[in-house]
Amino acid sequence: MRRVILGVGMSLDGYIARRDGAVDFLFLPDDFSMADFFASVDTTMMGRKTLEAALRLGARFDSKMGNYVFSRVHPPGAGEGFTYVNESPAELVERLRNEPGKHLWLMGGGELTRDFLTADLVDEIQLGIVPILLGEGIPLFPSGFPQREYELIENKSYSKGLIALRYQRS
Amino acid sequence: MRRVILGVGMSLDGYIARRDGAVDFLFLPDDFSMADFFASVDTTMMGRKTLEAALRLGARFDSKMGNYVFSRVHPPGAGEGFTYVNESPAELVERLRNEPGKHLWLMGGGELTRDFLTADLVDEIQLGIVPILLGEGIPLFPSGFPQREYELIENKSYSKGLIALRYQRS
Repeated sequence: MRRVILGVGMSLDGYIARRDGAVDFLFLPDDFSMADFFASVDTTMMGRKTLEAALRLGARFDSKMGNYVFSRVHPPGAGEGFTYVNESPAELVERLRNEPGKHLWLMGGGELTRDFLTADLVDEIQLGIVPILLGEGIPLFPSGFPQREYELIENKSYSKGLIALRYQRS
Repeated sequence: MRRVILGVGMSLDGYIARRDGAVDFLFLPDDFSMADFFASVDTTMMGRKTLEAALRLGARFDSKMGNYVFSRVHPPGAGEGFTYVNESPAELVERLRNEPGKHLWLMGGGELTRDFLTADLVDEIQLGIVPILLGEGIPLFPSGFPQREYELIENKSYSKGLIALRYQRS
């Protein structure tokens, strides 16, 4: 089955970005590779605010991926390298699971993650935690979803104090 | 020097307790021991709400420890097994550092931790992270303090998915 993988980097106090969307505090040390992860997914899903923050940072979409942006503002349909959707997370995931393919990467942000957790759609969490307390920012897990248990399946330390955690839904 | 060690357990989404103060989701697996930590400290510091939650849970204070409770409500002085203080975190820490002794355990909660981080008094963070998303609760790191960098000095996995992290102030 195509699994939904929430994969993000965050500060030790749980922020995926500064208030203004900046992610300058995140880093990928030389001894850490995302190659296996990238090889395991062929689809990204994100919220509109995350899209806009990514575009402001100069991000480009990988045309070999299916890229879906949830928005209540934009009408559904193709954007530049991605597709706006306004169906529910459960509807999109069900539709994608009925097609063959690799795993589905949930990139955030926090509000969409909360919707996915509320619908209990997050099969796996892959977290990179950087050793900084930001003190404020955009939280990965904004409050307001039901309790969800996970199992730790991997915990590794990398240089510069990055830790990489993998959890799967119990 | 006597170091201030923030030592707590939390959920993967950063909560030290449920909204009502319950900490039923925390656990200590058999292969994890706090003996070394307990041997390294001789003083606890906590906020009034944390005290009251601990007392509701039936906690008793170790009479071999100095136990300090920050409160703006209670007048300073002895309680049952602890001492109320209304000085600032910086004042108490300076006073304790001028006395010989072991390290100083900051037990929380979030509001007091924020005051300590604002004053840059947290030398070390020892976190136990349990593999659960609560969805709501009392955060360990409520927003509203300046950015603080730390160095990872230990990362270990234990049974039942507990991970234990140690960070020191950069």
